[in-house]
Amino acid sequence: MSTESLIFALFGIGISILAFMFALWLFLWVKSQPKANDKIATIGEYIRQGAATFLRKEYAVLAKFSGVVAVLIFVFLPTPIWNGNILTNLTMTISYLFGTAFSAIAGKIGIVVATIANMKAAHAAQTGIRPSFLMAFRGGAVMGMAVVGASLLGVSLVLLITNNTTMLLGFSFGASSLALFAKAGGGIFTKTADISADLVGKVELGFAEDDPRNPAVIADNVGDNVGDVAGMGADLFDSNVASMTAALVMASSLDAKFGSENISLVFCYAALGLLASILGVAFARMGKKGTPTQALNKSTYITTGAFAILTGIATLIFSFSWRIYGAAMVGLFVGVLIGIITDYFTDDTKKPVHEVAKASESGPAFTIITGISYGFLSVLPAMIGIAVSALAAYLLCDPLGPGYAMFGISMAAVGMLSIVGMIISNDAYGPIVDNAKGLAEMGGLGEDVIEIADKLDSAGNTVKAVTKGFAIGAAGLTVIALLGAFQSQVNDAVIELNSQAGATIYQAIVGFDVMNPTVFFGLLIGAAVPAVFSALLMLGVGRNAERMVAEIHRQFEDIPGLKEGKEGVLPEYDKCITIATSGALKELIPAGLFTIITTIAVGLVGGVYAIGGFLTGNIVSGLLLALFMSNSGGLWDNGKKYVEAGNNGGKGSFAHKSAIVGDTVGDPFKDTAGPSINTQITVVSLVASLLAIIFLTTSIF
Amino acid sequence: MSTESLIFALFGIGISILAFMFALWLFLWVKSQPKANDKIATIGEYIRQGAATFLRKEYAVLAKFSGVVAVLIFVFLPTPIWNGNILTNLTMTISYLFGTAFSAIAGKIGIVVATIANMKAAHAAQTGIRPSFLMAFRGGAVMGMAVVGASLLGVSLVLLITNNTTMLLGFSFGASSLALFAKAGGGIFTKTADISADLVGKVELGFAEDDPRNPAVIADNVGDNVGDVAGMGADLFDSNVASMTAALVMASSLDAKFGSENISLVFCYAALGLLASILGVAFARMGKKGTPTQALNKSTYITTGAFAILTGIATLIFSFSWRIYGAAMVGLFVGVLIGIITDYFTDDTKKPVHEVAKASESGPAFTIITGISYGFLSVLPAMIGIAVSALAAYLLCDPLGPGYAMFGISMAAVGMLSIVGMIISNDAYGPIVDNAKGLAEMGGLGEDVIEIADKLDSAGNTVKAVTKGFAIGAAGLTVIALLGAFQSQVNDAVIELNSQAGATIYQAIVGFDVMNPTVFFGLLIGAAVPAVFSALLMLGVGRNAERMVAEIHRQFEDIPGLKEGKEGVLPEYDKCITIATSGALKELIPAGLFTIITTIAVGLVGGVYAIGGFLTGNIVSGLLLALFMSNSGGLWDNGKKYVEAGNNGGKGSFAHKSAIVGDTVGDPFKDTAGPSINTQITVVSLVASLLAIIFLTTSIF
Repeated sequence: MSTESLIFALFGIGISILAFMFALWLFLWVKSQPKANDKIATIGEYIRQGAATFLRKEYAVLAKFSGVVAVLIFVFLPTPIWNGNILTNLTMTISYLFGTAFSAIAGKIGIVVATIANMKAAHAAQTGIRPSFLMAFRGGAVMGMAVVGASLLGVSLVLLITNNTTMLLGFSFGASSLALFAKAGGGIFTKTADISADLVGKVELGFAEDDPRNPAVIADNVGDNVGDVAGMGADLFDSNVASMTAALVMASSLDAKFGSENISLVFCYAALGLLASILGVAFARMGKKGTPTQALNKSTYITTGAFAILTGIATLIFSFSWRIYGAAMVGLFVGVLIGIITDYFTDDTKKPVHEVAKASESGPAFTIITGISYGFLSVLPAMIGIAVSALAAYLLCDPLGPGYAMFGISMAAVGMLSIVGMIISNDAYGPIVDNAKGLAEMGGLGEDVIEIADKLDSAGNTVKAVTKGFAIGAAGLTVIALLGAFQSQVNDAVIELNSQAGATIYQAIVGFDVMNPTVFFGLLIGAAVPAVFSALLMLGVGRNAERMVAEIHRQFEDIPGLKEGKEGVLPEYDKCITIATSGALKELIPAGLFTIITTIAVGLVGGVYAIGGFLTGNIVSGLLLALFMSNSGGLWDNGKKYVEAGNNGGKGSFAHKSAIVGDTVGDPFKDTAGPSINTQITVVSLVASLLAIIFLTTSIF
Repeated sequence: MSTESLIFALFGIGISILAFMFALWLFLWVKSQPKANDKIATIGEYIRQGAATFLRKEYAVLAKFSGVVAVLIFVFLPTPIWNGNILTNLTMTISYLFGTAFSAIAGKIGIVVATIANMKAAHAAQTGIRPSFLMAFRGGAVMGMAVVGASLLGVSLVLLITNNTTMLLGFSFGASSLALFAKAGGGIFTKTADISADLVGKVELGFAEDDPRNPAVIADNVGDNVGDVAGMGADLFDSNVASMTAALVMASSLDAKFGSENISLVFCYAALGLLASILGVAFARMGKKGTPTQALNKSTYITTGAFAILTGIATLIFSFSWRIYGAAMVGLFVGVLIGIITDYFTDDTKKPVHEVAKASESGPAFTIITGISYGFLSVLPAMIGIAVSALAAYLLCDPLGPGYAMFGISMAAVGMLSIVGMIISNDAYGPIVDNAKGLAEMGGLGEDVIEIADKLDSAGNTVKAVTKGFAIGAAGLTVIALLGAFQSQVNDAVIELNSQAGATIYQAIVGFDVMNPTVFFGLLIGAAVPAVFSALLMLGVGRNAERMVAEIHRQFEDIPGLKEGKEGVLPEYDKCITIATSGALKELIPAGLFTIITTIAVGLVGGVYAIGGFLTGNIVSGLLLALFMSNSGGLWDNGKKYVEAGNNGGKGSFAHKSAIVGDTVGDPFKDTAGPSINTQITVVSLVASLLAIIFLTTSIF
């Protein structure tokens, strides 16, 4: 690493420490705000404990999993221990564990703050919408700052200490293996609770949302936190680390060849992205006449603008290439574009939502068919966006020299993810206000306060749909870049293996030709993986919800006075939380293992070319299904809300019943399977890169 | 073409004439059977007329479309008329029109026979299940023989007359452009009628299926014919022609290079496949103790065995390569395997159907989630099957020389489609017995007869699901082979263009590397196309069903005594047929045009490499979605039937209502969108091959 790179890495560390300090300040600010009333405090405490319990149990399972993986890494990676260097394998193992730990800590911080901020936001809603907004937003921003700070800090430290980009793959794999389970586990938990609570509470008994008599109501609120705060945070931590890793792997190879300063550039851009997010968060306020959605959007635009200006200035000062700057801007632009497209397909003032609501008048089957159809349509513009941005980044950077084209794509991913701090802040805002609304209802804060909380919640839903589209787009670009990283891993290994005294001469990979039958073989199987992965998660939600529904029925039968709402009679909230927790942990294992084992099997059968095809098929169908499922789900959710707002017959009508069916189908689509696919494709790519040498040397074909 | 090739082409023509004669004999046999009673004859006549009307109107629209395309072909293909030879362009135009005409005639024959056989089968059911089975099967076999005879005859004639395999692409494009609209149009028609009839008749008014008071009941019966007889026939005609075309394009190139006899081999195998199907049909009988399903399966196994033996003997006698024989057998085997897998996911004695039925007890949302999940799971084994067969065929034939590997894949497709005559016969059997059941009910033939018809119908449903899986697998392999055909088209053009005096030197394509950004660009967009195509068709069904539901409501209001079933009062069946017809034709145009225009746009923007990626993405996501939608749809259908058979609460229960929602969602999945994707991927591949030179010479990148 050159001195310049070193300085920029230290700059990255500096900015991440600044982010942590800012996060701490936000945390203390939130904590210092006035307390809620006793009832809210009690219920809020249930939620806090439930979330903490889930996280503790989840991390216990994941620690075992990580332990096993760590041993495997120590024995086999980067080269089997009997062929290589024990110290290198140990460093790799530590980098991996470091990645899991950073991800877990970021998730934990987010949950701690979110489960305090929800109570404070509910309380603040009594004094008006603006203070309540600020509370929720700043609570969410703690998570945003912690996640992005941790990812930049982790990547910088690993590279500074090991000076080996392969170790970054280990760190990144740690982050993404944890994210896979956090997202999938959180997703199963949250939807189990949500569906079961609705099914018995709303449909069977006609309770309102968040009725405290419902034994699953706390689990539902816990679910929002573990799914959207911890899960989404782990997901974006993973994407952010993966994008930096892909860029740094290629930058390091380029710097070694050309003596260029691309590592510096990556650190500089990543640090400035975080700085831009800090600015965006710091200036976030709800205007006197504005809406919460406008406030959230405004901060995003501030961040975007700040990033474009800051990196422009840096490019000028440090004479970075304007072509690479262009690639980063392309990524940034497409990220925003995908957000706008997602918004169109899920916004309740646009045609798709109206059509779903109208179709609901003919029955639930039409709600489903229409939602699936618009979900399918929503795939095209986003895919074109990703395709065009990858092509543009490639063409922009290709003239810089061999290897720069793929590096350009990775910088587009870095550009897209530069504003991720802001995105996570917006995203974590969602469950806080959702919880705040529930607390306001359960705490009896009156209609006016509930209405304010409802407005804040509705903005959270809109923003959440956009965030998901953004996360998928970012994962798409990142994984394309990881395909490049995989190729350069293999080719580095080829050079090294050929330099050793061995009988076999290995050929460098020049590309993955789909007319090569092993590539095509991998392609077809890789394409099937996200479908199977989604299916396993959704079936898991179904099975788990069945168990919880049975428990809710049991409580209503066994606890006298519960159904009638007798004073002082409370359901056993913790039993539902336990079912959601243990079920989620049980159901996520097959899906996660299936993904990893299939990757290894294809690599051992077909070698590196089959894996190239496998990754490609996986990206393509993963993007397709993730976009489809997230957008259909968001569409059904808002379709139901649109009907509830009095359209197409309004609450209680036949259309409303149909719309509820759509929303229930959409729940595991948008909150369990759809967004978990992101992580799935990242994990597969990293497994492939890490095992590149093994696939190269020991495959059947 | 060598003398030997000529002889084998003539042999193909001979066998296809034999198939026609056999079809004629079957037709006359069906016609000679005793007539049904007057009431059945009247209703049967309604169905016959309705189907004839739809076909006439559809063909009128398609004639206009084909006319426009013919003019474009004449001007631009294979080379723009100002650069090339008018006579060649004229031959291409005629080949194209020939392809559309053959497809249309085969569809017409099938419909004519099916709408006679349904009445005869209803009548024959009065004397027992075995004569009724034979009637329906032989009626369906007319379609099977006509379709396969026509495809072999057409391909042989075009090649004999023009001696130019590029003209085969024109013929094949004619077949597939017609199939695209026939399948999509028929699919929209049939599901519009089915859904509307059920929605008002069964759900709102509690009528039985096929109640003659229902104004949409005739349209529903017509729909079975135009969807499953004409549509599926056109689809498999198209796949069969495309597989032979792909094989012949590559065989011709190999024969020219090596002086081999691969054209002979293709014709020989295709002719023997047809002969095997003739044998299978001739020996089809229902055993005294057997079931209809067993009888259908037995004939399929006879055909499969006969094909394996006959081609084995031919390979021995004519010294064809055993490796190519092996490739054909791999295809045959995988085709049967995909059938078995499809059967597992849709059979009412297996776990998926039971799980869907059980989930229905919790509500329609769970029916949907479970069905979608199993549909996703069903994708994996089929994709692995296709991947392994393509890889095996490639590896088997690769040692024969350069170019043989891809040819091997095309021969696997030919092998898989060898038994297509039998498959179509089985498939066309379905709507005949479905109609026969309806006629028996409407004609008042008594409980015993209806029960017999019901058993025959149930066998038809099982076989239909298997046929669809088979059709998708065959399309998959065919399109992989077409990718090879596309490459050889481009490379032939490169040689020719470079030999002309031009400033530009073109490079031959060595493959489509996914690391090439234009390939990746095409890949992402190609993957989105089947999703959008499906969405447009399904939205079309929804819109069309809305119109028809309104019309049904109008009739029940305006026609006194209709709802009560007053003697002599009949609904206006023709109005519903008109709505289904005009709606279907209106709705299929955007989907078809979208597909073709996107292909051309990607080719003009990104050139041949982008198209290579585009085709790959299209195959991968097309297979994924087609398998998913067909299998989910079949699963929901049988899940509903399973509940109706008295499980999980039985008819009228809450689970039954949920299962009906699943079935309704599944209708456009399995009968409109899913199977149309087959044709969509073939059309895209053929457009790409036909326009290869234009994309090579005039693209932006």
